[in-house]
Amino acid sequence: MLPEALQSAIDALGALPGVGPRTAERYAYYLFRSSPKLSSSIVDALKNLHSGVKSCPVTFALIDASEEISPLYDNPARDKSTVLVVEEPLDIYAIENTRTFKGTYHVLGGAVSPIDGITPDKLHIAELISRVEKDGVLEVIIATNPSIEGESTALLLQKLLEEKYPELKITRLARGLPLGVDLSYADQITLSAALENRTKL
Amino acid sequence: MLPEALQSAIDALGALPGVGPRTAERYAYYLFRSSPKLSSSIVDALKNLHSGVKSCPVTFALIDASEEISPLYDNPARDKSTVLVVEEPLDIYAIENTRTFKGTYHVLGGAVSPIDGITPDKLHIAELISRVEKDGVLEVIIATNPSIEGESTALLLQKLLEEKYPELKITRLARGLPLGVDLSYADQITLSAALENRTKL
Repeated sequence: MLPEALQSAIDALGALPGVGPRTAERYAYYLFRSSPKLSSSIVDALKNLHSGVKSCPVTFALIDASEEISPLYDNPARDKSTVLVVEEPLDIYAIENTRTFKGTYHVLGGAVSPIDGITPDKLHIAELISRVEKDGVLEVIIATNPSIEGESTALLLQKLLEEKYPELKITRLARGLPLGVDLSYADQITLSAALENRTKL
Repeated sequence: MLPEALQSAIDALGALPGVGPRTAERYAYYLFRSSPKLSSSIVDALKNLHSGVKSCPVTFALIDASEEISPLYDNPARDKSTVLVVEEPLDIYAIENTRTFKGTYHVLGGAVSPIDGITPDKLHIAELISRVEKDGVLEVIIATNPSIEGESTALLLQKLLEEKYPELKITRLARGLPLGVDLSYADQITLSAALENRTKL
């Protein structure tokens, strides 16, 4: 019933995550009403997305296709003896934005989730284990998400790393109250952790 | 800090309405992780969006670029003596989906809103007024949105049409309780209208 070109745009944009038919309609109609420049900028950006980005072969961070290795690893100012392990490449930028971490990163590529078919061999765990020896890593900071999958991945990593390197320091990000969340809204587990790991003033 | 191609995609997608930096990041990363086919389908659809869609010169509905006039007007089965007036082209499809309207449409192209610079001369009001005479219109159904702008546009249309065609029947969509909304949640104006326009069982 709608013009074919508009319907195609709605269908294509409806494939974005969390975008239902009404939102896709809104996006497509907005683009149609706006200057063609806006659509062109999306077209140009998406054309180069796959060819312009690749994974770092050491850390599995996302890098420019023209780069060999992630600059966050290659840079001599980064301390290779500390490795912070995250699930997804974009998690790196959340940590980098704090400007307090000077070590290097390792991206697992997800968390163990047998239901979704993500078994440990699908993650970059073997590469992490060999990196520990190769780079003389002294500390591995596990920064998987505080979800069930993230927690079981953290436990698995801890087990595998301890088995192979009994001397290695293995840590994980602290649990506690986030900024701006009212005490009465905090969940039990977070609050127990905040109490248990209380810091001296 | 992010790979340039990924950052470009985030920036481009962030121009969609209601899409903030986090959502744009999610869209771009999802497209990067998915098969390049998904990005290609968006690229292809957006390339043809502006060239493939145009406005009907009579009703201002959106039509295929290959069509002359909206098929919802051109079709001899549609009753040209009844014109339903909507603000935006996509409103037509909401009405069409009810499958109960057999008249024709007229798209204003928005609602009067002096703050946003939308004065009556920016809308397709003159075209509507001349259509009444040309098509021998007997009834104009005003289906602007139940917003302040929609209401003032409806009043303006009523005034202009009554002045020129004192015999013309002018109606507007009924006000009342929508399906599934609890009485206690209905606003005062809607409830007053529902009471005033009550129908006999």
